[in-house]
Amino acid sequence: MKCLSCKEDYGDRDAGTCRECYEEAGETEEELKREIDELKSKVNFLRLLSSGSNSAARANTPCFSDVVLVACGTPESPCNSPSIPAHRAVLTSRSPVFRAMLENEMEESLSGTIKMSDVSYDALRAFVNYLYTAEACLDEHMACDLLVLAEKYQVKHLKTYCQKYLMSRLNWENSLPYYAFAHQHGAKTLLDAALSLILDNMDKITKREEYAELVEKDPRVVVDIYEAYLSKQVNTAASKDSPPKPA
Amino acid sequence: MKCLSCKEDYGDRDAGTCRECYEEAGETEEELKREIDELKSKVNFLRLLSSGSNSAARANTPCFSDVVLVACGTPESPCNSPSIPAHRAVLTSRSPVFRAMLENEMEESLSGTIKMSDVSYDALRAFVNYLYTAEACLDEHMACDLLVLAEKYQVKHLKTYCQKYLMSRLNWENSLPYYAFAHQHGAKTLLDAALSLILDNMDKITKREEYAELVEKDPRVVVDIYEAYLSKQVNTAASKDSPPKPA
Repeated sequence: MKCLSCKEDYGDRDAGTCRECYEEAGETEEELKREIDELKSKVNFLRLLSSGSNSAARANTPCFSDVVLVACGTPESPCNSPSIPAHRAVLTSRSPVFRAMLENEMEESLSGTIKMSDVSYDALRAFVNYLYTAEACLDEHMACDLLVLAEKYQVKHLKTYCQKYLMSRLNWENSLPYYAFAHQHGAKTLLDAALSLILDNMDKITKREEYAELVEKDPRVVVDIYEAYLSKQVNTAASKDSPPKPA
Repeated sequence: MKCLSCKEDYGDRDAGTCRECYEEAGETEEELKREIDELKSKVNFLRLLSSGSNSAARANTPCFSDVVLVACGTPESPCNSPSIPAHRAVLTSRSPVFRAMLENEMEESLSGTIKMSDVSYDALRAFVNYLYTAEACLDEHMACDLLVLAEKYQVKHLKTYCQKYLMSRLNWENSLPYYAFAHQHGAKTLLDAALSLILDNMDKITKREEYAELVEKDPRVVVDIYEAYLSKQVNTAASKDSPPKPA
């Protein structure tokens, strides 16, 4: 027989589907692709140009903003960066924290200025841009910065996005700092993935400099890891000792 | 052989794919579905609550609007409907017509009120809601109203959406009024589909009341139809007369 997809010959043992199911699967794929196209065009339609975007179209047009965000830097190194114009309607619809700030008579609402500490101008600009477009250009550093902001302002969609990116960069060598970071910012998926890599590489990881640093800085996190390690050892031993299941 | 998909037995002649291609297709489908889920969550994230939406969450919260839209009805029956609050940032990002209105010192920009004639309050509310959410609850009447607004304010995404809906309601009996409507509002896809149905049912359609009305009201459109009819006749005759292609 000839496979209708790869055109190769195959025998009975390598049989996949009948012709009818093959054709049906093709139609399903077409339908899914059409749905993807429609959703993509919807996403494009729903995007707003933010002042954070560098689009030339935006540069010379008013943006009707009614609030500004300012990155104040850290207490040790306050910074004097330009303010980023935004819209209350957008901020409140994306983040319950902004909503509480702006819909009540809080300082930020009255002054129209939201001062944000512990954040760089670049990260804040990327954050605001994400709220308008659901898009961000990530590297590891930016993904961490945005995850922290997403956690703080409860922007779930962005938090998931950053976690997904960091998961794709995760390997045994960075698993320990990633674990500590995920621990600090409640990034559950990343935490579990990092822990699993750590447990598989305990002997190598405990010899690394980051390990010694973490013991010094946050021993509680290290204890969590050892507890998980112990629990894994016990489980493995138990499953080895238990009699094989009856068939 | 047994089909892995429907579990039925099949013979050589009904063979579809080999096992490897079957599994690959399954993975592709999974990937496409994941992409759809991601896009759907992006759409949800990017939606804004508009004042047009009836959500209870919106009812008691400020919406920080900076412009209102008013449906003025028709010259014959002016109406006094409530104004619909909106945001310049949203209107200008969705429609080049609103952009020209609001980014220049036109009356609408200075007064913060956009008066819209020839539109009902319900249609305007649905229109504004679509600009915020890319969603509308359509029936034939609403789809026509929104298509007219989409055409006037150059909101392509909505125009496509309405055309798609009207295409799904198209049949030979309504093809003539749909054709006239599509003609008037530059809805090309709907126009072509309606014309094709008309040409297949010329004898029945020319006996209908709408036909007589259209001849009265807009004979130019009727001439277009006859020209297309003639051209189809000529082509059919030509293809019958032409000698069969050599194999």
